[in-house]
Amino acid sequence: MTSQITSQTDIQHSTVPAYAAPSAKAPLERTAIPRRPVGEHDVLIEIKYSGICHSDIHQARDGWTEGIFPMVPGHEIAGVVTEVGPGVTRFAVGDRVGVGCMVDSCRECDNCRAGLHQYCTGGNVATYNGLDKNGDPTYGGYSTHIVVDEQYTLRIPDQLPLDVAAPLLCAGITLYSPLAHWKAGPGKRVAIVGLGGLGHMGVKIAHAMGAEVSVLSQSLRKKGDGLRLGADHYYATSDETTFQKLAGHFDLIVSTVSAPLPFDAYLCLLKTGGALVNVGAPEEPVSLNVFSLMLGRKTLAGSAIGGIPETQEMLDFCAEHGLGAEIELIRADQINEAYERVLASDVRYRFVIDAATI
Amino acid sequence: MTSQITSQTDIQHSTVPAYAAPSAKAPLERTAIPRRPVGEHDVLIEIKYSGICHSDIHQARDGWTEGIFPMVPGHEIAGVVTEVGPGVTRFAVGDRVGVGCMVDSCRECDNCRAGLHQYCTGGNVATYNGLDKNGDPTYGGYSTHIVVDEQYTLRIPDQLPLDVAAPLLCAGITLYSPLAHWKAGPGKRVAIVGLGGLGHMGVKIAHAMGAEVSVLSQSLRKKGDGLRLGADHYYATSDETTFQKLAGHFDLIVSTVSAPLPFDAYLCLLKTGGALVNVGAPEEPVSLNVFSLMLGRKTLAGSAIGGIPETQEMLDFCAEHGLGAEIELIRADQINEAYERVLASDVRYRFVIDAATI
Repeated sequence: MTSQITSQTDIQHSTVPAYAAPSAKAPLERTAIPRRPVGEHDVLIEIKYSGICHSDIHQARDGWTEGIFPMVPGHEIAGVVTEVGPGVTRFAVGDRVGVGCMVDSCRECDNCRAGLHQYCTGGNVATYNGLDKNGDPTYGGYSTHIVVDEQYTLRIPDQLPLDVAAPLLCAGITLYSPLAHWKAGPGKRVAIVGLGGLGHMGVKIAHAMGAEVSVLSQSLRKKGDGLRLGADHYYATSDETTFQKLAGHFDLIVSTVSAPLPFDAYLCLLKTGGALVNVGAPEEPVSLNVFSLMLGRKTLAGSAIGGIPETQEMLDFCAEHGLGAEIELIRADQINEAYERVLASDVRYRFVIDAATI
Repeated sequence: MTSQITSQTDIQHSTVPAYAAPSAKAPLERTAIPRRPVGEHDVLIEIKYSGICHSDIHQARDGWTEGIFPMVPGHEIAGVVTEVGPGVTRFAVGDRVGVGCMVDSCRECDNCRAGLHQYCTGGNVATYNGLDKNGDPTYGGYSTHIVVDEQYTLRIPDQLPLDVAAPLLCAGITLYSPLAHWKAGPGKRVAIVGLGGLGHMGVKIAHAMGAEVSVLSQSLRKKGDGLRLGADHYYATSDETTFQKLAGHFDLIVSTVSAPLPFDAYLCLLKTGGALVNVGAPEEPVSLNVFSLMLGRKTLAGSAIGGIPETQEMLDFCAEHGLGAEIELIRADQINEAYERVLASDVRYRFVIDAATI
C-alpha cells in the first residue's frame, strides 16, 4: 500500500495501483483505487498473484449484469499478510493467504450460519463489482493490495506455491464443492465436461478423490493434457458414438462449459440416480425433456463456488495432494490480450497476473 | 376366469372379459382377451378394482409412444388370489393383492438387483401396452382376471379396502417414492404442485410422513379438499404474490402436473439445497435458466413410480396410516365418459372401475 492517503467521507483510505475497466467493454488500464483502512478484524494483504477467471471478462464486458465502473476484476487472489487489525486472531503478518469470490456476507442467515456463505440469502459481498456494507464499491485482485475481513480470508498451506494456488480460490472451489457434495470418490465414474480453467481443476481434484475420471470435450485436441492431469478416459462429444458408447455410464457429470448443452443427451450418460451438475453458466435458457430426468431418477443441478470452511478444506486437500492450477504467468500489461485469448479458448489453463508488474 | 380355452401357439390360454381400445383414440369397448396359464411362479388374480390413471388415456389415445392395439389399460389393480402356481411361496388363494405398472423386468441388471425395477436397464415389462418375455402383448387391469409372477405381485394389508387401495399401485407409489427418497418428514416443508389423482396422494402421504405440506394449485377451487386431506397451506399459483411470498420457502417440491411449469419461478421457491421433483410428465421440452439451479445448489429431478420392495413399503405405510385414495367408483361402461372427465380435471380424485361390472 502506498503512503498516499485520500479522504473519503470521514474514513482515511489509501490508494493502491490496480488495473481497471473504466467502463463496460473498455480495455483495462492502470489506475489507482482506494482501499479502506485496516479495521478491527481486517487483514491487509500484499497481493502476489491474481488469476483471470472467465467471469472477470463477463463482468468487465457487462455480459451478466449491469457492472459498477471503474471495475477492478479478480477473485482468485493469493498473497501475504502485511498488517492485521487489533481484533484479528487467525492471521499474523507474513501468513500466506488467499481471497476468493466473496469478502463478506450477512453472517446471520441460515446459509451463513451453515458455512454456505456463497448462498447467503442476506446478500454476500462480491470481491469486486459489488458494494460493501458501507455502500462502497469493492475492487478485486488486479491490484497490489487488498483489505479483507479475516473471516473471509483463507490460509494457503506452505506446500502450495502462491501462483498456482491463486486459481484455486475460484476454479478450484467451484469444482471441489460439487465433487465433494455429490461424493466423487473410489468406485465412482465422474465426467468433467470441458477442459478449461474450471475443467482442468475438476480432473485433478476428482482424480485425487479417487474417482474414475473421464473428460468430455468437443474434440480430442487436449487429450494428452487431460490424461496427464489425471483423467482415465477422454472422449470427443463431437463424435456421436460417444453418446451411444457411454449411455448409463456415469455417476456424476460436472459441466464447466458456458455454452448451453443438449441436456437430454448428457442425461442419458448418467446411471440411475446420477447427477448432472452445472458450474458453467450459459446466459440463455436451456431446454430439456422431463422424461430424461424421470427415467432413472436423475438430477440436473447447479453449484456455485463454495463457502469459507469448504474453501479452506479445498486448499488443504489440494496442498495434501500437491494440486495447483496449470498456469501461464503474465504481466499486468498483458491482461487485455489474455482476455482475448481466454475468449478464444487459447489458454492452458489459467492466466495468472504477477502482481509485481501492476 | 371363464372356462373357455383357446389355443395360441402351443400354450393353453384362457380368455377373460376386458375393456379394450381396439385402435388408437377409439373408445374402449367390451371384448375378450387371452390370459396365459398359471405358471410355476404365477398367481391368478381375480380383479376387484382397477384405477384409471391419466397415463391410461395418454396411451390408449397414443400420446406418448406407438401403442399396441387392442389395448387393455389399467395398472392400478387390486384383487384376490384365486390360484397359485406350484412354485409360489409368497401368496396363497384368498390373499388380497395388488399389481402396479410392471409385471416383470430383466431381474439381472444393477437396478433390478437393487429393487429399483422401475429403472430396469434390461427393459421391464409394462402391465399393459408392453410385450412380455415371450413377445406376447400384455393386457392391463380393465379386466376380470390377470396372471402375474408372484415377484411382481404386492400384498395389500387387511386394513386397506381394495377399492381405495387400487390407485395406490400407481398414484400412491409415484408420490411415496420421491417423498421418501428426498426425505419428506418432520421439519421439512413440502409442496405438492397440482391436486389431482397424484397430488392428492402426495398430500396424504407427505402429511403422514410428518412434513409441513402446502398445495400449489392453479386456483383455490379445491382448497377445502386440500386442507381436509392433510395440507397445512394452500396457495394459488395464478396469484403472482404466491411466488414472492414463498421465495426460498420449501425443502422439496413435487410436481404432479403434466403441463410444462415455469421452472425458474418454481425453483425460486426452494431453499438452498432444495429439490423440485417431477412426477408429472409434460410431453414438450421445458425451458429453464441454469442460474436458477446454481444460485442455491438446487436440484431439478424426476422420479417414476417405485420398485417392488418400495411399493410394498408404501402399501404397508398407507395401511398403517389409514391412507387410501379418494375415489369415485364407476361401472365399466362408464370408462369412456370417465376419460373425458379426467381430461377436463373433473374427478375427485380417482376413478376406480368396479371389475364386477366388466
